[in-house]
Amino acid sequence: MNATERVSQWLAHLDAALQRKDIAAAAALFEEDGYWRDLVSFTWNIKTSEGTGQIQAMLQATLDRVQPSNWKIDGAATEADGVTEAWFTFETAVARGRGQLRLRNGKAWTLLTTMVELKGFEEARGETRPKGVEHGPFKGRQTWKEGREEEARSLGYTKQPYVVIIGGGQAGIILGARLRKLGVPAIIIEKNARAGDSWRNRYKSLCLHDPVWYDHLPYMPFPDDWPVFAPKDKVGDWLEMYTKVMELNYWNSTTCKKAVFNEKRQEWEITVDREGREVTLRPKELVIALGVSGYPNVPKIPGADTFEGDQFHSSKFPGAENYRGKKAVVLGSNNSAHDICAALWEEDVDTTMIQRSSTHIAPSDSLMELALGGLYSEQAVKNGIDHHTADLIFASVPYKIMHTFHIPVYDEMKRRDADLYSRLEKAGFLLDFGVDGSGLFMKYLRRGSGYYIDVGASELVANGSVKLRSGVNIAQIKPKSVVLSDGTELEADLIVYATGYGSMNNWLADLISPDVANRLGKVWGLGSNTPKDPGPWEGELRNMWKPTQVPHLWVQGGNLHQNRHYSQFMGLQLKARYEGIPTPVYELAPVHHTS
Amino acid sequence: MNATERVSQWLAHLDAALQRKDIAAAAALFEEDGYWRDLVSFTWNIKTSEGTGQIQAMLQATLDRVQPSNWKIDGAATEADGVTEAWFTFETAVARGRGQLRLRNGKAWTLLTTMVELKGFEEARGETRPKGVEHGPFKGRQTWKEGREEEARSLGYTKQPYVVIIGGGQAGIILGARLRKLGVPAIIIEKNARAGDSWRNRYKSLCLHDPVWYDHLPYMPFPDDWPVFAPKDKVGDWLEMYTKVMELNYWNSTTCKKAVFNEKRQEWEITVDREGREVTLRPKELVIALGVSGYPNVPKIPGADTFEGDQFHSSKFPGAENYRGKKAVVLGSNNSAHDICAALWEEDVDTTMIQRSSTHIAPSDSLMELALGGLYSEQAVKNGIDHHTADLIFASVPYKIMHTFHIPVYDEMKRRDADLYSRLEKAGFLLDFGVDGSGLFMKYLRRGSGYYIDVGASELVANGSVKLRSGVNIAQIKPKSVVLSDGTELEADLIVYATGYGSMNNWLADLISPDVANRLGKVWGLGSNTPKDPGPWEGELRNMWKPTQVPHLWVQGGNLHQNRHYSQFMGLQLKARYEGIPTPVYELAPVHHTS
Repeated sequence: MNATERVSQWLAHLDAALQRKDIAAAAALFEEDGYWRDLVSFTWNIKTSEGTGQIQAMLQATLDRVQPSNWKIDGAATEADGVTEAWFTFETAVARGRGQLRLRNGKAWTLLTTMVELKGFEEARGETRPKGVEHGPFKGRQTWKEGREEEARSLGYTKQPYVVIIGGGQAGIILGARLRKLGVPAIIIEKNARAGDSWRNRYKSLCLHDPVWYDHLPYMPFPDDWPVFAPKDKVGDWLEMYTKVMELNYWNSTTCKKAVFNEKRQEWEITVDREGREVTLRPKELVIALGVSGYPNVPKIPGADTFEGDQFHSSKFPGAENYRGKKAVVLGSNNSAHDICAALWEEDVDTTMIQRSSTHIAPSDSLMELALGGLYSEQAVKNGIDHHTADLIFASVPYKIMHTFHIPVYDEMKRRDADLYSRLEKAGFLLDFGVDGSGLFMKYLRRGSGYYIDVGASELVANGSVKLRSGVNIAQIKPKSVVLSDGTELEADLIVYATGYGSMNNWLADLISPDVANRLGKVWGLGSNTPKDPGPWEGELRNMWKPTQVPHLWVQGGNLHQNRHYSQFMGLQLKARYEGIPTPVYELAPVHHTS
Repeated sequence: MNATERVSQWLAHLDAALQRKDIAAAAALFEEDGYWRDLVSFTWNIKTSEGTGQIQAMLQATLDRVQPSNWKIDGAATEADGVTEAWFTFETAVARGRGQLRLRNGKAWTLLTTMVELKGFEEARGETRPKGVEHGPFKGRQTWKEGREEEARSLGYTKQPYVVIIGGGQAGIILGARLRKLGVPAIIIEKNARAGDSWRNRYKSLCLHDPVWYDHLPYMPFPDDWPVFAPKDKVGDWLEMYTKVMELNYWNSTTCKKAVFNEKRQEWEITVDREGREVTLRPKELVIALGVSGYPNVPKIPGADTFEGDQFHSSKFPGAENYRGKKAVVLGSNNSAHDICAALWEEDVDTTMIQRSSTHIAPSDSLMELALGGLYSEQAVKNGIDHHTADLIFASVPYKIMHTFHIPVYDEMKRRDADLYSRLEKAGFLLDFGVDGSGLFMKYLRRGSGYYIDVGASELVANGSVKLRSGVNIAQIKPKSVVLSDGTELEADLIVYATGYGSMNNWLADLISPDVANRLGKVWGLGSNTPKDPGPWEGELRNMWKPTQVPHLWVQGGNLHQNRHYSQFMGLQLKARYEGIPTPVYELAPVHHTS
């Protein structure tokens, strides 16, 4: 049998075992430590079952209701290094799915099942795209424009949305687009005046460090001449356009004052200030999309209130233009710190970076080539891997073993960029590659921080153009200077706290209540027992894109790739509830940490 | 030899003949009445050579300089009904090209050569897309936003554009995008306040009658859930967004007062009113994009100034909402007349259509299926024919014989929609299928009018809901009525002149001078010696997308498909001039008609 036949046979065996409810037989098709990652289709959750024990438990709980069938290989299987890979489709009672399989020695090493669409609620696209106008003569027709105007007048006033999304950055916008396509009425609440302002309002040199192929929004990919690294204002304009073209109900200049869940009516009561007027929204489901890097973390340093210069968290840093010839101290050594130090240097500001702990430096070119190139690049597209496929390949690797896929990449990076790393260390910079050498993406998943995608600032640190003090902190701030933990003192006109962000649930203490904030718990991280990601092991990102311990409260966020991909599953979970389709959640993740 | 081998051999023979400058041998590869249509690559013109005599003359004039080479089949040839078809690529001294070939009995029936890109001036896309930001540390960098702001401040003031486009509808916008991608500085002048207003300002029920697959703009196709028939406001919003995303220099609320060509300085002097301030632009090249259906044609009917009701040309018809219960007379029986009669009926306006001469009625579903479906549809896309390919297939059919391709389509339409046609005739409607039965598209190409894509109004005419008076004109207008040429009188509160448009060069009489308007001559039409398209035969559309008899004056226009495709060739012709590449024009088309 060739690889394709072996896969077809394996799928047939799985199908048969599941049909006759022989859970033990189904589990036996897996390696003992094999993985089954399910995105919604079986578990109505984002859930990885690790090992045959967990796989059996999952099937025990879900099989009867899910009624999976029609498992079919899609395309040909491929084989490399003893691993056979293939795509397949399948169905459940209520949905159609797509998945990926890795076989080793006839048994499943990894299986990914994802829900693609709900039967009877498919998005109207391609052949089923809306007609746009009802042809034929009839009276009382409502034009598209009239329909939109009526919606703008009524939604949130005389007609309540099913979902409210708090936060109109790329996460909220992307989820909003999914919900629109699925026909789930939603309103997005955005404090700024224009969609895209969360980008426009940043310091002027800000650009995406993720390359374009990684960043496409759903439904409307960037055109093929879009720059590799988009400048902030161009991104802002695209988001603004997208919000309009996708026909989102986007409330600008609107802030959320309070949200309370009305248990009796089983709906949220969300009080917002919309351009000065108070409106109460009553959705059934509430999504917070306030940024995985949204809640600024500013350390309280003695004497900060005596400082006579300017001080900003990195998220509020206005730009370096007003500080020419002055002295800046940047506390922090990760992405924002480097970006801002480079911006300051470019404006001839005397800049010192205070590095408290080690940072992983990943040079952009190397990252693009070694880490992303196979999946998100011009070459990948040429090889037939578009971003849809790349997203699924990415999703098919269980978090538990993901680091093993990445370690060789960063080993190669160490070799390729040895010169830069050596010079950085000579300059006193504290380098790491993650505690297990798995590099940038694992640090991102585990703690959302601790790295810098080098687009030029590392050279400034290595050659001393940006001064560096490492292994120290700021112990005290005085009117015109900072005192470091080693006792030395630095004059300063500007302090930038590039000190990262806290968990998104922090916002909820004021927005809803401290109790709800704690019940939701920490957002992000895997429970890997690595710095800033305490155990126990979660297996999936805490609270992301799935049901939480607070009924009817959800979290949307992540980078553009994650928002693009996982908004699909958020959309389906919300659509199912909107349509009254039963969504029994398998193993709702417990909360182990509140921040 | 199989079909592919036959094509390869033919291409090799052509290549060899051209290399040794054996023009007779090259011509002998064609049927005696064969066609060679060239879009820029050989002729720096849009030019069809008909028959071996003309083909030889074209090669005689162009071969030495063009230096064509590297003719290679692209993909496999196909064969049907004795015709072998294939795609190929080729090169010239300065460009790369793509073409299509139809062979019959070993000889070329039709050959299409098109310029794809200028060597050394390729658009930055895909692998060569801009990086977006210069990585690495350096001072004095200009952000994208700063670059755009500087451009906005300087272009047209301290720095002159190479091209000015008068008219910011879809034609001007699409050409503007091409020029932007090619790096040719251009300004688009638009009288309305916002891009897309030329759509927004129309009567409320207006939608595209061409389906979405036909309508994509270059670089950013509509998303796959875009409606089949886009409502006007949605189109307007898309154009507005597109103008912004494509980074066009688009001057809203700007009207052109006068344009004069300064022979001494070899540049235009264009005086515009920009939001109340006068600005003089000095481009080298001027494009008018004022609409092939842009210059309203309003017949002067005795007594029109005595009319006490409202009267509008169809282009200014505000909508039917204010005429409920009133009486409307619509003069005309083509597309706008039908759309407007339907809009009036839907608002319970007593409506009479005055049909002066016959109209071709093409039911939308039949048109989509029979005429467009093979090239522009979901099915076509599934068959591997995207709109780029479809555009080239469309362009490969010489105008001289195009009608023969269409006649069978409309024969089938006659059969398929026999019931509607019969009922229309019973109602007194004067029907035609073009003088030679070649239907809608030939009427469009020959005269830009004379048809209605039926999306419902024909039913109203057939069943009498919209009253019809055919074979008559309005002879006289009185204060509250119109008198027809047969003496009958109709009460009227509203008269709509759905009486079409004049040639675009009419605008130039005031804009430049009557002399220049006449030197440019009639825009559109093929010289087919059919109604409204007097001979002699032109072989291409008069003045469209190619050099004209007025140096440095060009015309961009057509439907979305034509603007999408032919803007490519306009862009390349203008880019070549911008870069100083010699562009000797073969057989600049003479002017036979001035309107």
